Amino acid sequence: MKNIAILGLGVVGRGTADLLEANKALIAERVGEPVNIKYILDLRDFPGTPYEKKVVHDFSVIENDPEVELVAETMGGSHPAYDYSLAALKAGKCVVTSNKEVVANFGEELLAAAKENGVSYAFEASVGGGIPIVRPLVTDFIANKIVEISGILNGTTNYILTEMKTKGKSYADALKEAQAKGYAEKDPTADVEGIDTCRKICILTALATGILPEAAKVRTIGISKIDGADVKLLEKKKYAVKLLGRMKMQDGKPCPIVAPFVCGADSPLSHVDDVFNGITVCGNTLGQTMFYGRGAGADPTASAVANDILSILKDGKTSFAPTFNKAADGDVIASENFVCRRYVRTNMAMSEVEKVLGKVVDLGGAYITEKAFAEGEFDALAGMFDSALRVL
Amino acid sequence: MKNIAILGLGVVGRGTADLLEANKALIAERVGEPVNIKYILDLRDFPGTPYEKKVVHDFSVIENDPEVELVAETMGGSHPAYDYSLAALKAGKCVVTSNKEVVANFGEELLAAAKENGVSYAFEASVGGGIPIVRPLVTDFIANKIVEISGILNGTTNYILTEMKTKGKSYADALKEAQAKGYAEKDPTADVEGIDTCRKICILTALATGILPEAAKVRTIGISKIDGADVKLLEKKKYAVKLLGRMKMQDGKPCPIVAPFVCGADSPLSHVDDVFNGITVCGNTLGQTMFYGRGAGADPTASAVANDILSILKDGKTSFAPTFNKAADGDVIASENFVCRRYVRTNMAMSEVEKVLGKVVDLGGAYITEKAFAEGEFDALAGMFDSALRVL
Repeated sequence: MKNIAILGLGVVGRGTADLLEANKALIAERVGEPVNIKYILDLRDFPGTPYEKKVVHDFSVIENDPEVELVAETMGGSHPAYDYSLAALKAGKCVVTSNKEVVANFGEELLAAAKENGVSYAFEASVGGGIPIVRPLVTDFIANKIVEISGILNGTTNYILTEMKTKGKSYADALKEAQAKGYAEKDPTADVEGIDTCRKICILTALATGILPEAAKVRTIGISKIDGADVKLLEKKKYAVKLLGRMKMQDGKPCPIVAPFVCGADSPLSHVDDVFNGITVCGNTLGQTMFYGRGAGADPTASAVANDILSILKDGKTSFAPTFNKAADGDVIASENFVCRRYVRTNMAMSEVEKVLGKVVDLGGAYITEKAFAEGEFDALAGMFDSALRVL
Repeated sequence: MKNIAILGLGVVGRGTADLLEANKALIAERVGEPVNIKYILDLRDFPGTPYEKKVVHDFSVIENDPEVELVAETMGGSHPAYDYSLAALKAGKCVVTSNKEVVANFGEELLAAAKENGVSYAFEASVGGGIPIVRPLVTDFIANKIVEISGILNGTTNYILTEMKTKGKSYADALKEAQAKGYAEKDPTADVEGIDTCRKICILTALATGILPEAAKVRTIGISKIDGADVKLLEKKKYAVKLLGRMKMQDGKPCPIVAPFVCGADSPLSHVDDVFNGITVCGNTLGQTMFYGRGAGADPTASAVANDILSILKDGKTSFAPTFNKAADGDVIASENFVCRRYVRTNMAMSEVEKVLGKVVDLGGAYITEKAFAEGEFDALAGMFDSALRVL
């Protein structure tokens, strides 16, 4: 029997516990022996539930029990999630998490601590919910140099943008709708301003390159300033506006950015709608591939947590071992150098627009440049137009 | 230094050799030591190429060289590919292949031989070209019961169907175009009649369930009888016709089928166009996920072969070890029981159609049923209509 502990019985923790219970027989068969949740750490007591007798309020009970091989951290927030994770790793226990904040901020330290103590620190659930993306980036691109990653990494903002596109709603109305449906929080800042997406593209960049960018230094533009007029005009021409976390290799180094991008119908990302996530990964030999699925929700996220738990119990304590190095000076190309084509909406004549931006494609009241501009270069020009967006 | 041999320097074999050369430094770093192609088995000599000195014409040279740890079989066809693979496994060498015919026909024997001899038999390149799908099915769904797989698994037929949809071409004209571009072979039977797709859905079924269906027993309907009139009518209503290999769990057992299906705009498969492949996998907890990318071509396929080679050299001789069991009586639900909704085109009045099929959705001259029919049940009705298709 393999004993584990779950830290935090919120939506994801509860989903994980329920899944381990529901698929118990299948899991015992696949792992080779039964998996038992010995402890659940939470402030609450959950009387009358099957978890009542497993609840503890003191982390040291888990830390000091040599029978616990693995700890699933599903608490959220930086502290004490980071502190408990580090303590568990130092006690020789594997740690699995859904906590992107901790992975983005402390991934280097925790992966190093895992390696030092002969255990794994795994975080499939931290990006893309149920979509397998973290392990595939480590195991399925071993023959490739990854040259680009572009992802719709946040279901809340994708739902809002889909409502704006398909129903012509304003940003404010679409946000209200998302809040009413429980897709957006009362304070939606972390989602709509791109902070969540930024953490995730930092994690994906580290998986692809070994270099973990500092989230605070990545140019991060959310969706709250998007004008419905642009979404409508673009929709008629079969373009979709999507909030993307992107990483492009430029001069051999990763250049990350988070911003709304205009995606053409030929990009698979333009068809990823509602609360779904989609992540394209481009390898130097295999070309473009996309991973698609439910990016959030109790069941998909719990599925990813459980997958990490079972993989480690089955394949061994050290089976997941990437290395993250926090970006030092010069490791990462600053977002200001990110290069892409541009969309602008304006009443200026096309000939005037072309004097400023070079050759453009006419969308009728709006234009897409043929030339790609660096962020810094375009910043100085953006004010000339009624609105401007990046193009994938 | 790790020594390997390549059997067959055709498109995929050459692509693999070129990739190992091009990414040499990266590969040595990731594997931990350099990877050397010691032998290439081919009937030809390749004078003047970098591979000239490695060519051998006698398989026993490779079989009997203890320095060769791994053999990449990229010959195609059942024999001697199967025989050499078995001999290599028995000689204690890992085998990696792109050969779906061999995996679909002899997967059980070869995986068993691998296990007996303490080595791996891996075949990422046999399905979905460069798309990581074989390993993810084994490693990333460990906490889920897979309840359904639906895949656009053949680039040639998807190119033809895309030309019919977007340019209104007839099947015959689209096929000619595909042949002119090198996407379809002179004798396109294996592609257009669904034989290639059938092998691939059998392999995916075995990865998901352990049961390898017998390809010859799977109902396999190609695209050669598709009427352009249906494709056009459906396109106006935002439906796409796609050749799918499908496997649904019915009564706890897999039920496979290969046929053209009508896919609505809300299915991610409907947007997979041209030579791309897309595979949706539905898990009981994580819901639907899709894997998308280039399903054929030298580079993507070579990338998948190389990924298997490097994963095994890095993770160990026994690191890839699924088990296939050839379907015995009752293991697989016969395709005749596959249940799905139907599309029919007819001049009959809607009320007449509904007398036969129950409630239908009116597409204008064509209808989609609300009820799902088993194959056997619908077979008796199909002749009443001008044409009929399955609905995803």
